[in-house]
Amino acid sequence: MTTNFYAPPSAVRSGRIVLPEDEARHVRSVLRGQEGDEIVVVDGEGGWYRVRLDHLAPQQVLGTILETRHGVGEPDVDVTVGLGVLTKRSRFETFVEKAVELGVRRIVPLRTKHTERDDIRSERLRNVMIAALKQCRRAYLPTLSAPKPLPSVLEEKIAGPRLICHGSADGNPLSRVLDTREMPDEVLILVGPEGGFAEEEVTRATDAGCIPVTLGRRRLRAETAGIAAVNGVVLSVQAGGQ
Amino acid sequence: MTTNFYAPPSAVRSGRIVLPEDEARHVRSVLRGQEGDEIVVVDGEGGWYRVRLDHLAPQQVLGTILETRHGVGEPDVDVTVGLGVLTKRSRFETFVEKAVELGVRRIVPLRTKHTERDDIRSERLRNVMIAALKQCRRAYLPTLSAPKPLPSVLEEKIAGPRLICHGSADGNPLSRVLDTREMPDEVLILVGPEGGFAEEEVTRATDAGCIPVTLGRRRLRAETAGIAAVNGVVLSVQAGGQ
Repeated sequence: MTTNFYAPPSAVRSGRIVLPEDEARHVRSVLRGQEGDEIVVVDGEGGWYRVRLDHLAPQQVLGTILETRHGVGEPDVDVTVGLGVLTKRSRFETFVEKAVELGVRRIVPLRTKHTERDDIRSERLRNVMIAALKQCRRAYLPTLSAPKPLPSVLEEKIAGPRLICHGSADGNPLSRVLDTREMPDEVLILVGPEGGFAEEEVTRATDAGCIPVTLGRRRLRAETAGIAAVNGVVLSVQAGGQ
Repeated sequence: MTTNFYAPPSAVRSGRIVLPEDEARHVRSVLRGQEGDEIVVVDGEGGWYRVRLDHLAPQQVLGTILETRHGVGEPDVDVTVGLGVLTKRSRFETFVEKAVELGVRRIVPLRTKHTERDDIRSERLRNVMIAALKQCRRAYLPTLSAPKPLPSVLEEKIAGPRLICHGSADGNPLSRVLDTREMPDEVLILVGPEGGFAEEEVTRATDAGCIPVTLGRRRLRAETAGIAAVNGVVLSVQAGGQ
């Protein structure tokens, strides 16, 4: 069994699961599943199901739930990452794929002073996210919000520190900032687009309570910074745990 | 000034630098550099030069060194990462690009039981690395070795811990393993190809003194694991420093 399958919560009823059409096709043609085979299905809202395949028709694949778990593969912390919408769509996709694998809980594309594009391809990104979800065996599908202006994100309530990545030279390294804190339930981390945040945006964010952090001495590409930010938060909280 | 330029050490002589042809072209046509403008040139071996452009001919761009530094943008630890050669070349390229940005010092493509390809496109990867070097403003160009079988990498001497990434479930989180150690000069971290390491390879590595570590609860794609490994080591050592 090399991958999980995905079915929305509505596909789960009375101890059985009906796979959506594309997943059903995958079971039949790629996995060459047979009745009696077991697969794992996740519902993107924390549900994890070990399923025995009962019925494989051309239009429908149906199975019985043998075991149910919840929240498999989730990190100890809810990470929300805000990343400036990138001019290069493929780079934003790379970020989204890696962020899902690394355990992000919510992705907020940011509209900032230096963003040169203000839309994302939500449908396509959602497919990237579902593929990553199945591949990395998480049970939660992170949420992807519509692009938001930075100030509106700064108004959100978060049960933990809010961090803004800024500069590559001196400054508070992310890992050290989180190291000295109680293990938080949530972390918000903000990363600028290709051109970074404007000084006034950093000031506004720190005025609103954000802690400026650096991800190292090198100037990272925006999507690399986004990936390193998610990984850094998850790793730091993990290191701080018992 | 948005990017650094690259010139090999042989281009530096008597306080002056002659830019290689493609870099010279970039200065003229993209940057639209003028005599008297200042640029930063790195030599990939730690040399960092602030340079005043003296002469811009169609074939040659020449400048005078105004300031010399060494090792700009380098992390506190020499990280060698071994990653199984990936079947998808584009994914290995993504890894290489990000690893350079995140501060790796040496990349060793590994031949392992589950690698399905045994060559890399060295020339193309070198170009990716130079582009990343300039972009992230490092002064060292990491080395990229030819693909090596895992056992020969296990024989190398390293002035610090050697880690092997294995499994996504329970196990020693990378950040916690490094957290409890003296700040090392060097770290070797090994990551498997798409299919991961075989059990016997992990046994062989631990017999040779490697510490098995996990990068989290999710099963990461191989190149994501490589990226997370480099980032995790650099961040952990940074957090442990004064």
